Amino acid sequence: MFKEACLLVDIHVLRINHRPFRDKRITTHVALTARAFGAKDILVDLKDEDLEQIVNKVTENFGGDFHIRTGINYRSYLRSFKGVKIHLTMYGLPVDTVIGELRERLATNEFAIVVGASKVPIDVYNESSYNISITNQPISEVSALALFLDRLLAGKEMELEFKGKLSIIPSGKGKKVKVNGNIT
Amino acid sequence: MFKEACLLVDIHVLRINHRPFRDKRITTHVALTARAFGAKDILVDLKDEDLEQIVNKVTENFGGDFHIRTGINYRSYLRSFKGVKIHLTMYGLPVDTVIGELRERLATNEFAIVVGASKVPIDVYNESSYNISITNQPISEVSALALFLDRLLAGKEMELEFKGKLSIIPSGKGKKVKVNGNIT
Repeated sequence: MFKEACLLVDIHVLRINHRPFRDKRITTHVALTARAFGAKDILVDLKDEDLEQIVNKVTENFGGDFHIRTGINYRSYLRSFKGVKIHLTMYGLPVDTVIGELRERLATNEFAIVVGASKVPIDVYNESSYNISITNQPISEVSALALFLDRLLAGKEMELEFKGKLSIIPSGKGKKVKVNGNIT
Repeated sequence: MFKEACLLVDIHVLRINHRPFRDKRITTHVALTARAFGAKDILVDLKDEDLEQIVNKVTENFGGDFHIRTGINYRSYLRSFKGVKIHLTMYGLPVDTVIGELRERLATNEFAIVVGASKVPIDVYNESSYNISITNQPISEVSALALFLDRLLAGKEMELEFKGKLSIIPSGKGKKVKVNGNIT
């Protein structure tokens, strides 16, 4: 069991080429997946205060020490990042061929995971320590991120506990929610 | 190794409450994830010819025996479906607690996996054989579907082979694509 929503690893998700109008919902799904699957934060290149509010509201309600920052210069972030840089792309190496090596490196390194919205510039491929694919088919950056984090953490993200105002009581039928400790 | 994009299982994905304007991109990501992770088809409740074209274009280019149908009455589909009906919801039972049982049932049953866009009516919870969650946190139907199929197929979806006009040659840097058998 982990501390409240805190794995002993440092994983950052970097969302690049975010276009506030076109990508808000997909980037929201990327952010929520990052939060629930054990990342510390999501950094988004374009400033988007709506997106910050949406994601912060979920964290406020459901708990966890997760942060969002938008308006990040991703090129200088990546250049100065000292840990392992992973770019998720359908063109990359199959995740299962490198995951053992990555799990070992996770013990002593921070990870930055890059997921692009529209076309990713070639310098990101070159700057990344690994270009990794999930299935080598066109899928979705949302499912790619989920699968990658699940493989990296060997499923342990499923044991994360979040302590927020709201929590779900798992149920075979219907919805059971605890609000400030009281079952609704 | 599997036959070309064909697992020996019958999995259908049912997307409900799709709103063509608001949900087109998310539903596209759901469909592409379904295709790459071994489902036979995606059935969408509202008619959306744009969506059909987008998804069919990917299948035409990248291969696989995957189909999309939109304008489906999901209530009558679910009522008459004779196999195992799974509804993915953050309120459901944790996937890892039921996955062994589901893998056994997959050997002899078709599966329909329901993913909602907006609020899912309570009759879907009642009609489903299982209501299942991935993390019991708000994530995304895209990542929920990917994780669920990966668990159900025990990672074997990563070995699927698709034969299309285009195929990716996995690469540590850059992009290598085969177009009609020729490397670009």
